Amino acid sequence: MNDVLVEREGPFTTITMNRPRRRNALSREFLLALSETFRQVGDTDARGVVLAANGPVFSAGHDFADMAGASHADVRSLLRTCTELMRTIQSVPQVVVARVHGLATAAGCQLVASCDLVVAGESAGFAAPGGKGGWFCHTPMVAIARDIGRKRAMEMALTGDVIDARTACEWGLVNRVVPDADLDKAALELLERATKGSPRSKALGKQAMYAQLDRPEHDAYTYAIEVMAASSQTPEAQEGMRAFLDKRPPEWPA
Amino acid sequence: MNDVLVEREGPFTTITMNRPRRRNALSREFLLALSETFRQVGDTDARGVVLAANGPVFSAGHDFADMAGASHADVRSLLRTCTELMRTIQSVPQVVVARVHGLATAAGCQLVASCDLVVAGESAGFAAPGGKGGWFCHTPMVAIARDIGRKRAMEMALTGDVIDARTACEWGLVNRVVPDADLDKAALELLERATKGSPRSKALGKQAMYAQLDRPEHDAYTYAIEVMAASSQTPEAQEGMRAFLDKRPPEWPA
Amino acid sequence: MNDVLVEREGPFTTITMNRPRRRNALSREFLLALSETFRQVGDTDARGVVLAANGPVFSAGHDFADMAGASHADVRSLLRTCTELMRTIQSVPQVVVARVHGLATAAGCQLVASCDLVVAGESAGFAAPGGKGGWFCHTPMVAIARDIGRKRAMEMALTGDVIDARTACEWGLVNRVVPDADLDKAALELLERATKGSPRSKALGKQAMYAQLDRPEHDAYTYAIEVMAASSQTPEAQEGMRAFLDKRPPEWPA
Repeated sequence: MNDVLVEREGPFTTITMNRPRRRNALSREFLLALSETFRQVGDTDARGVVLAANGPVFSAGHDFADMAGASHADVRSLLRTCTELMRTIQSVPQVVVARVHGLATAAGCQLVASCDLVVAGESAGFAAPGGKGGWFCHTPMVAIARDIGRKRAMEMALTGDVIDARTACEWGLVNRVVPDADLDKAALELLERATKGSPRSKALGKQAMYAQLDRPEHDAYTYAIEVMAASSQTPEAQEGMRAFLDKRPPEWPA
Repeated sequence: MNDVLVEREGPFTTITMNRPRRRNALSREFLLALSETFRQVGDTDARGVVLAANGPVFSAGHDFADMAGASHADVRSLLRTCTELMRTIQSVPQVVVARVHGLATAAGCQLVASCDLVVAGESAGFAAPGGKGGWFCHTPMVAIARDIGRKRAMEMALTGDVIDARTACEWGLVNRVVPDADLDKAALELLERATKGSPRSKALGKQAMYAQLDRPEHDAYTYAIEVMAASSQTPEAQEGMRAFLDKRPPEWPA
Repeated sequence: MNDVLVEREGPFTTITMNRPRRRNALSREFLLALSETFRQVGDTDARGVVLAANGPVFSAGHDFADMAGASHADVRSLLRTCTELMRTIQSVPQVVVARVHGLATAAGCQLVASCDLVVAGESAGFAAPGGKGGWFCHTPMVAIARDIGRKRAMEMALTGDVIDARTACEWGLVNRVVPDADLDKAALELLERATKGSPRSKALGKQAMYAQLDRPEHDAYTYAIEVMAASSQTPEAQEGMRAFLDKRPPEWPA
């Protein structure tokens, strides 16, 4: 049985974490397999990706069985491999929606925070449990804190407690909460809305968002003006404008 | 008929976009006219500014009729002119409140996000529609993303869908939502509250806010300490403190 | 009667501002006393700290009696002393929870925003009143703005008006709102949840949070990976993992 399932249906690919007995724990091999899968799907013509999970838990984060006794260098290497997965998700040209049920904890919560958009079932819960143990969730909080306010980030980090899906949505970690029975449908609906338009324009837009968000406003404008001016010359930008002016549906160049 | 209407009433000036048939689209000439108007009003003794719009739409952003077929250099120049308006709004000494009804899309939504405060009628809607076309809303998202959380910014940017006024208020893009019939009153009420006190102190405060928000906390403190210490020596700071200690209303120096 | 009361009860220390007749105004001596108290408590084995206040007002901020007529250099020095208190709170190894009733205004509101977590009674109110006077709340807004969205920060800064506890919680300045009668209990409950686990791991975690929050995401990861890899080698990290794998409660090294 494969640890990572890949299913293409129409324009969308679903990548499913399939280590339910290990609570989809992020071992080195599993991280590498997920990164490789995202890279491969990234090179297809899929327009969007759902990241899902099998089993009762979305992902429990790293597996302490892999970490206890590991050297500083080995842990650093594992964390780099983990961060590489987070960056790969943000760097593929497709829109990536996390479809979350059950618990997403530690690096599993970081994984959710690293997807472009998040749909959660009412069963979902989010936590950075290192805060109540002996090893703080330093790297998970990099991703989580950037989605929510500071006081909420401190609360998640320091208490390590689980926040439920509704709270996660109020705080901005999650875009949509639905009953678990509607989760597949809601993830696809959001993905459909998020993948309209030219795929090439969208892929550039996604990258430019991540690039500008971290910059001071003035620098962000300098960057965004140049990207927007350059992209105005693309066939898709011209087609979009002409179709609008001609009141006809656009046809995006392949 | 003028494209930009300016009306002074008591301490406040209302600048109204008046190209309803063009859905208040931001052509180069219109951008330049708006910037010039803000600069001129900025030099008056008005204490606050309302940015309003005539017609069913607040502003549809750039006009594709101006953009289709334009060269990279021409588009860059237009985007710079547009960004210049956003910066001018933030740099005038007055508090600027956007009074939004109807749709504010693309650069029209950026215009809203660039005002200091925003009051929206229930008819208002906000979108970055480039996300579902061929040309992503790169520059509008610079302003919009800085008011709302990352996941919400990604949702607006990637879907291009309209969010309603209540959602915009929950997300922090809008300060107040009221029935459209109460919009004028609500904008003036907020502006009155936001323009109490010494105008010179307020003008400095507004600039210092924009300067510190983008800095790391340590640098922001270094900057804010110096501005606050320097401004303690101004006649308005001294008058404010003395009036408070004397239990009398302050009289702000002209 | 002491201006600063310190009471240790079990693992927690409560630091109480006790200048009710001065509305707990932050004079230079009071700021120095509070900083010194935090440093001393920081060196004890207390696991958490509550910052509380006696009297009807949490803290009214600086005392204009100290500031009116003071030179630029004297004001700068006072603001540095004030900022030093804010940084000391963030730099002690304990989790610090503000327990707020009544008004917290100007530097008093900054004090709240500078605590790691905040519990507010329904009587609490928060304001940056310099915005409606002659001397803008430049330094308080550095702390306050980093907890809430930009438009909300501009509203607080420009209007100077009081926002109530529920609004402060919705905006992210406050973690929890409860009836005033339940305030002590709620502050201790949150502090208990936030001080589980290894104190050394938590102290490192708190510092690392403040260090990473202000950095661009890429830099934050570089930093967090190294801190997390290094801390994996600590006795508390190893004990936490082994206890988890052995299904026994951990025993944190002293």
